[in-house]
Amino acid sequence: MVRHESADAPPAAVEPAALRDGLPPMPGGPPHEETHFAAGQTVRDLAIGAADGVIVPFALAAGLAGVAASNRLIATAGLAATAAGCVAIGLGRYLAARTEADHYATERRREEKETHLYPDREKWEVAAILHRYGVKGEVLHQAVDAIAAERRKWVDFMMRFELDLTEPEPGRAARAATAAGAACAAGGLVPLLPYMVLAETRPALLASCAVAGAALLGFGWLKAKATGMPALRGAVQTLLIGGLAAAAAFVVAQAAGG
Amino acid sequence: MVRHESADAPPAAVEPAALRDGLPPMPGGPPHEETHFAAGQTVRDLAIGAADGVIVPFALAAGLAGVAASNRLIATAGLAATAAGCVAIGLGRYLAARTEADHYATERRREEKETHLYPDREKWEVAAILHRYGVKGEVLHQAVDAIAAERRKWVDFMMRFELDLTEPEPGRAARAATAAGAACAAGGLVPLLPYMVLAETRPALLASCAVAGAALLGFGWLKAKATGMPALRGAVQTLLIGGLAAAAAFVVAQAAGG
Repeated sequence: MVRHESADAPPAAVEPAALRDGLPPMPGGPPHEETHFAAGQTVRDLAIGAADGVIVPFALAAGLAGVAASNRLIATAGLAATAAGCVAIGLGRYLAARTEADHYATERRREEKETHLYPDREKWEVAAILHRYGVKGEVLHQAVDAIAAERRKWVDFMMRFELDLTEPEPGRAARAATAAGAACAAGGLVPLLPYMVLAETRPALLASCAVAGAALLGFGWLKAKATGMPALRGAVQTLLIGGLAAAAAFVVAQAAGG
Repeated sequence: MVRHESADAPPAAVEPAALRDGLPPMPGGPPHEETHFAAGQTVRDLAIGAADGVIVPFALAAGLAGVAASNRLIATAGLAATAAGCVAIGLGRYLAARTEADHYATERRREEKETHLYPDREKWEVAAILHRYGVKGEVLHQAVDAIAAERRKWVDFMMRFELDLTEPEPGRAARAATAAGAACAAGGLVPLLPYMVLAETRPALLASCAVAGAALLGFGWLKAKATGMPALRGAVQTLLIGGLAAAAAFVVAQAAGG
């Protein structure tokens, strides 16, 4: 989430006077440290992918360790689940982002068409949005006319404030998919390594719990930091989810009787 | 996504004149069938959970079937992975929604404080947003004053248009978690049933591919419908993701040599 996005725009003072007609220079605001940290999207994708990627392989391995499967089989199942999960997350993200971009384009064309076919209705929709925030009477009328005066801005307004759609960044789909998929693979390997290097199941299970616990706390902390949420809470929640997922997998594997 | 949200509000004509000052009755717009179908959030949660829930258990089972594991072990691993995945999705959704609700409340308090401490800056931020859409000069000044006249609406405006945060619905977290978790469990069972009822691995693998393929198409279609995306494309994409996830799990399981 970008806080104070308007503050990131170039200072109004350097724009030509005609462009900033009515917009004074930006007054002082809260000191910078009061605004939230928000990481770049790739850091977010990496942190989320890694935190989520640990959970199922760790839990699956713990469940299979409880029914006395061999470490080799546990590692094989864990790696297969990791591969499947990474493809599902990476490719899923990629295709979803592509679909969203197409959806944005389709809706934009539709809004544009509607400003031609039903200009009064589309103007009314702008008015209804501003009216909800207290803009009334003649000012409302003039503000709507100002927005509708330039079709690109009018459609921008409808896309953003009526449909709540923001224009997808080009190339974002592929970057998001690669980051999420790679981080998921790295996260999934962490709890499986003990089963790959140790011969006995019990010590491997204990070592897996230890490294998975540390990874869940660490990646959960990073994920929370990257998404602007309280970091300690994120770390504890991710550990809790991983622990309960492992407990569920353990109980189900016992019941299914491997 | 709710299209034409303003159109869902009670007709302006029944509101007291003082409230709709400057907002005329809604003009006619596009016929209803031009607007997009958008399902209730619970239907969305169910459809997404079911579609996503099929993928990893199906792929994991196919991977293990390729290294000649017994059907019982394949079913055990698949059920353990399903349990882990459902806890991760359900509990993850629940905690994320709770965190988001707290985040909204925190940001709202911060914005409210800033309107007291830095009113000129917060007014400028409202002005900067409207200015971007072409509202200028004296009209901009008056529109900003109208919005800032009532603190609740001023803060509403900043939450929605500066921070892009919408107020979470109370009780939504628990409903979303339950729907996603239950649908994920149902989705995960589909590709595992053949391994639970058939004795031989090969016919179970073939049956699992058949039912998983049908489920991926069906749930993918539903998921796309429920999220307002092209339905056929959603069905084919979900099938593609499931198929490639299974291929990846198969190759990795072969390489790990179960």
